Amino acid sequence: MALVLYERLCADDRRPSPFCWRARLALAHKGLTPEVRAIKFTEGEKVAFSGQTKVPVLVDGEKVIHDSWGIACHLEDAYPDAPSLFDGAGGRAMTRVFNLWVNHALQPALAPILAPYLLAVVHPDDRAYYRQTREARFGLTMEQLATRRPVYMEALLAVLEPLRQRLAESSFLCGEKPGYGDYLAFAEFQWARSVCDRDLLGPEEAALRAWRTCMLDLFGGLARSVTAFGTAA
Amino acid sequence: MALVLYERLCADDRRPSPFCWRARLALAHKGLTPEVRAIKFTEGEKVAFSGQTKVPVLVDGEKVIHDSWGIACHLEDAYPDAPSLFDGAGGRAMTRVFNLWVNHALQPALAPILAPYLLAVVHPDDRAYYRQTREARFGLTMEQLATRRPVYMEALLAVLEPLRQRLAESSFLCGEKPGYGDYLAFAEFQWARSVCDRDLLGPEEAALRAWRTCMLDLFGGLARSVTAFGTAA
Repeated sequence: MALVLYERLCADDRRPSPFCWRARLALAHKGLTPEVRAIKFTEGEKVAFSGQTKVPVLVDGEKVIHDSWGIACHLEDAYPDAPSLFDGAGGRAMTRVFNLWVNHALQPALAPILAPYLLAVVHPDDRAYYRQTREARFGLTMEQLATRRPVYMEALLAVLEPLRQRLAESSFLCGEKPGYGDYLAFAEFQWARSVCDRDLLGPEEAALRAWRTCMLDLFGGLARSVTAFGTAA
Repeated sequence: MALVLYERLCADDRRPSPFCWRARLALAHKGLTPEVRAIKFTEGEKVAFSGQTKVPVLVDGEKVIHDSWGIACHLEDAYPDAPSLFDGAGGRAMTRVFNLWVNHALQPALAPILAPYLLAVVHPDDRAYYRQTREARFGLTMEQLATRRPVYMEALLAVLEPLRQRLAESSFLCGEKPGYGDYLAFAEFQWARSVCDRDLLGPEEAALRAWRTCMLDLFGGLARSVTAFGTAA
């Protein structure tokens, strides 16, 4: 069956999009290897067949699914014999809540830290677009964001507390084995690792660092297989 | 079988403790009606038989369980034929992550808002203890906390975003039916309702308000059955 995943392309063949990493890891969890097609920010028309212009978009035979949560649910439902992403109905429901926390707390804490780094590795064709849209979103220039980084870093470390606590008691967020909850959170670290030459986690973050290493090792080192800075490896 | 729940007692027979409401609602979910014994902050020795001095403590026959998460897991495992709190292993894992978010994000956002209100309704015997321990925890006097309330309210509204988003798409956090994830979050609103004459949710918070009303209606209006201010009902 033809499986095609459209994801974001940055300079040097980088693939930083956390939304796309959710889909990449969910596919790998199901034992599926898609053909990956990477597009620039300014090439949204290449996925317009999905009814919108953002990535990830998954084409699975006749089906076209956009939005990372939609892709995860599709994979769970269409491939029930492969390992479960959610481990039951309650897992799916609470993973969705966690998904919304990642979208509305973890990702907004990371975004102002990473945006100036991303500007440096975005595809050259996208640089003007990226600066303009992100500066409008934050209401600050990239240079102002970089200056305020210490404040954002302090806020990020506070936001990470539930993950820190969980990983002090459990190998993975989802328990003894990784699940979609782990992919949701790890995709944010993979985003950081793909664009930023600085490790956001200090040496004292033992539990988070150990988990991140395990996540990088999954699926034959899938998340290590792309261009990234080495600090967070 | 003898089921006894020890919980916190405040003035006018109020029962604000969110940790204890987690246990109360989990018991009700399982169709269990414990004998409830309420103790003051300064009566911790009454549950010292549990090996510590905090509430909730559940006595279930020969078993003594303290800590709200321990109680939830005990009920899920000891009463497998009653409705599930977690709806599967994945649900238990991700509900634990959510539990840690409530403990380390939602509750810290509410605490500085509610502490001055709680001082007014804490049992008179506990008032000096409560003021001293909480002012030491916050590094601020109760009067300073009250003055800063607008800042804390703004922060709280931001923290609520994942719940707001989830409840815009689903009747309950756990899906079509309430589960332990709902009790975790609702217990925080019940805490507010038990001590505070002001509704923390504005009229524009339609999804959160509708959910809160459903939660108050559960189990024959269990959460309405205690002394509280009416604004959040």
